[in-house]
Amino acid sequence: MSDSATLGYPHRHLLGIEGLLPPAITHLLDLADGYVDLNRGIDKKKSSLRGRTQVNLFFESSTRTSTSFELAGKRLGADVINMAVARSSVSKGETLLDTAMTLNAMHPDVLVVRHQDSGAVHLLSQKVGCAVINAGDGAHEHPTQALLDALTIRRRRGRLDGQVVAICGDILHSRVARSNIHLLNTMGAQVRVIGPPTLMPRNIDELGVEVHHDMRKGLRNVDIVMMLRLQMERMQGAYVPSLREYFHLYGLDQEKLALAKPDALIMHPGPMNRGVEIDSTVADDINRSVIREQVEMGVAVRMACLDALTRNLPNIGAAS
Amino acid sequence: MSDSATLGYPHRHLLGIEGLLPPAITHLLDLADGYVDLNRGIDKKKSSLRGRTQVNLFFESSTRTSTSFELAGKRLGADVINMAVARSSVSKGETLLDTAMTLNAMHPDVLVVRHQDSGAVHLLSQKVGCAVINAGDGAHEHPTQALLDALTIRRRRGRLDGQVVAICGDILHSRVARSNIHLLNTMGAQVRVIGPPTLMPRNIDELGVEVHHDMRKGLRNVDIVMMLRLQMERMQGAYVPSLREYFHLYGLDQEKLALAKPDALIMHPGPMNRGVEIDSTVADDINRSVIREQVEMGVAVRMACLDALTRNLPNIGAAS
Amino acid sequence: MSDSATLGYPHRHLLGIEGLLPPAITHLLDLADGYVDLNRGIDKKKSSLRGRTQVNLFFESSTRTSTSFELAGKRLGADVINMAVARSSVSKGETLLDTAMTLNAMHPDVLVVRHQDSGAVHLLSQKVGCAVINAGDGAHEHPTQALLDALTIRRRRGRLDGQVVAICGDILHSRVARSNIHLLNTMGAQVRVIGPPTLMPRNIDELGVEVHHDMRKGLRNVDIVMMLRLQMERMQGAYVPSLREYFHLYGLDQEKLALAKPDALIMHPGPMNRGVEIDSTVADDINRSVIREQVEMGVAVRMACLDALTRNLPNIGAAS
Repeated sequence: MSDSATLGYPHRHLLGIEGLLPPAITHLLDLADGYVDLNRGIDKKKSSLRGRTQVNLFFESSTRTSTSFELAGKRLGADVINMAVARSSVSKGETLLDTAMTLNAMHPDVLVVRHQDSGAVHLLSQKVGCAVINAGDGAHEHPTQALLDALTIRRRRGRLDGQVVAICGDILHSRVARSNIHLLNTMGAQVRVIGPPTLMPRNIDELGVEVHHDMRKGLRNVDIVMMLRLQMERMQGAYVPSLREYFHLYGLDQEKLALAKPDALIMHPGPMNRGVEIDSTVADDINRSVIREQVEMGVAVRMACLDALTRNLPNIGAAS
Repeated sequence: MSDSATLGYPHRHLLGIEGLLPPAITHLLDLADGYVDLNRGIDKKKSSLRGRTQVNLFFESSTRTSTSFELAGKRLGADVINMAVARSSVSKGETLLDTAMTLNAMHPDVLVVRHQDSGAVHLLSQKVGCAVINAGDGAHEHPTQALLDALTIRRRRGRLDGQVVAICGDILHSRVARSNIHLLNTMGAQVRVIGPPTLMPRNIDELGVEVHHDMRKGLRNVDIVMMLRLQMERMQGAYVPSLREYFHLYGLDQEKLALAKPDALIMHPGPMNRGVEIDSTVADDINRSVIREQVEMGVAVRMACLDALTRNLPNIGAAS
Repeated sequence: MSDSATLGYPHRHLLGIEGLLPPAITHLLDLADGYVDLNRGIDKKKSSLRGRTQVNLFFESSTRTSTSFELAGKRLGADVINMAVARSSVSKGETLLDTAMTLNAMHPDVLVVRHQDSGAVHLLSQKVGCAVINAGDGAHEHPTQALLDALTIRRRRGRLDGQVVAICGDILHSRVARSNIHLLNTMGAQVRVIGPPTLMPRNIDELGVEVHHDMRKGLRNVDIVMMLRLQMERMQGAYVPSLREYFHLYGLDQEKLALAKPDALIMHPGPMNRGVEIDSTVADDINRSVIREQVEMGVAVRMACLDALTRNLPNIGAAS
């Protein structure tokens, strides 16, 4: 059991989906599946992380992600410390690495980090002795989001491979898109990205996806429609469409959705801009919208990641 | 035991005092009484909420109420998550209901909500699968405050019925006044409200209370003087008296207090504006001021509410 | 054991180092020593504070100190409540003492307080029924910082007495300097303070230290170099040197460090202003810089203080 667990997710950190092999992803999803039932029950407490310290270090504010990680850690019995960095030493001019080294000296077992710069979490992971989970870094990766999306799809469809998934909207600024593309490709799904040319990454042709600029063409016969949040706050320098125009061209409404398969799942990482990238009737579609399920799967997936990484820790401790 | 407990507080939520029957109120007060001793002891920890998740969702900031609920939940063994909404997705434009549904998908057992709008907590309670406690909504209700006031009075006087209680100050904007009026009327106390005409609700005649505009008349022979906080921040559009004039007319000082019964209890929900609605010598009166006891009873009452609601939860889970 | 423990730290509060006798200091350091190993292990959880309530009341923001205390309390099993006072009732005009009395009524066992005014924590401690730990008050004291510095030195050198320690920089505004001077003097170390005349306290001649204004003279043959943070935010009215000039005269670099003993330890309470009071090559010196160890010792020392104070509590409860 402990051997297979270690083989299942044989990494010290979870910094991104890129580079993970299918067995590692499957292992995390399987582990998460078990936590879904725990979370739905009355006693949601386990003791697998008892005596362990989890520090949530968020340089960008977030409701759902930080709450989800906090809940996940507490339900596993960890001592969880939240560090709101806006009110912290960073405002006193301390460097990222000094903050990290300070935390490291307090002997956390897991550091959950969100940072506005791509690569900051990776840099930090090289300097600390504990496991690091990337909770979103710049426009780079958001691996637990991709895992929870995958778990949502797998539970609904029984499989990931062969599913045709359209990721729609602001691909350029989206770490969610990037992590999902890596995961879905790795697991044998077929990915289309749909969005205006100005909101596509330059290297989109290297990512192994089908690129569309027209929602009506891109959505045709897809199994899954994944909408992205239009992140106005990230669009410095990029072409910013009017919200009305954006909704007309790229907002998901009943009419555009009709082009997908009749039972296509509707997904959104939240928080939603209703009326901007998604219409309310679509967001609240009882049969096809799985947006709430995504949130639910988020806690289970984060429990799985925390669990898998801390199982690996004793070896790490010995090695480092 | 579990039957009587369920009968004792047979509601899924605690949204207000209005509509609660005397046995439900008495049940919560009895339950709270037991927690007072626990809180005064060395080991203040119980495990009745172990494995349960409590989320404190405060759209308005608060020290004592949120701390009191956090302490109550932790002492009962719950995993407690605080959501500071100013720094949350609300600032990203997410709707109240989307925030609620997101939280709901994380399977909390109890949601403790404070919101600046009357009725917001009620709306939210209809959308989630867990128990909801109103920690104050606009000028509507603040039920745990009324319960802790009642517990304070009952422990000092042995009873609520027959007590003559004067609630003084800004009745119009006060959810504390409203919840106390409902509770005291329900339990057979006699309520007077005292304040300037401009700070009285329009429907005050329908609330079953005696209305006074003159402190010197209204305080005559009362058993309890409940001062309200002058909430300058809520007085948009209303007539705002000068603080000096307000204190002269409606501030509780030794002279006005002399009109009440000699052993009249002095209460205030806090935080106090010393020198505005209450004089320091009165606030700190060792024999008659029970302001600190109110805070102490607050933790016990919130433990009782959390306990009573989560005892009801398994049935709810089956029903919903 | 319980007798010797009580004798070991026979005080109800930890408000400062001034006035503590050597056995009380040694007792806390010995206790902390034991927690260092616990914190380095896999299971970092003890239950000695189970059922106890610790409230962190920080009127000044802080990363490392508040996190360190939170971690310390949680690892000992306490229920820990963080009160971010900026968002609390203080902004509603409540006085310090009303805030304290409100908290006190919730029956915490330990109150950890940081406040911008010297003496505020002492005042507060006289009004509450629980143990109080000073986590830094104005320019007065920061006792746990001095204890963690002492533990760091003692573990490296085996002893405190006879060590020659230079404390360098802004002595005037530094509670860290003040607490360290008291502790080191009490334990038989020899203290030099080095800094510009404008950043020396007026009563420096009464503190039993050797005063230097020239780093090159003051550092000669010292065993320990303790740098202080240049706290620009505290320098209202004082002569503020340019950062460039300050670094030239008082910043610790390789050249100045060469005057100390070859194996001199380099210390800094953090957060560091690299390039202002300390050069990066010195701060990161693998053999001599013990800055990260200081952080590590911080958690252990705070666990010791929490533990020692709560062991004394039952007697206090009976006495008060």
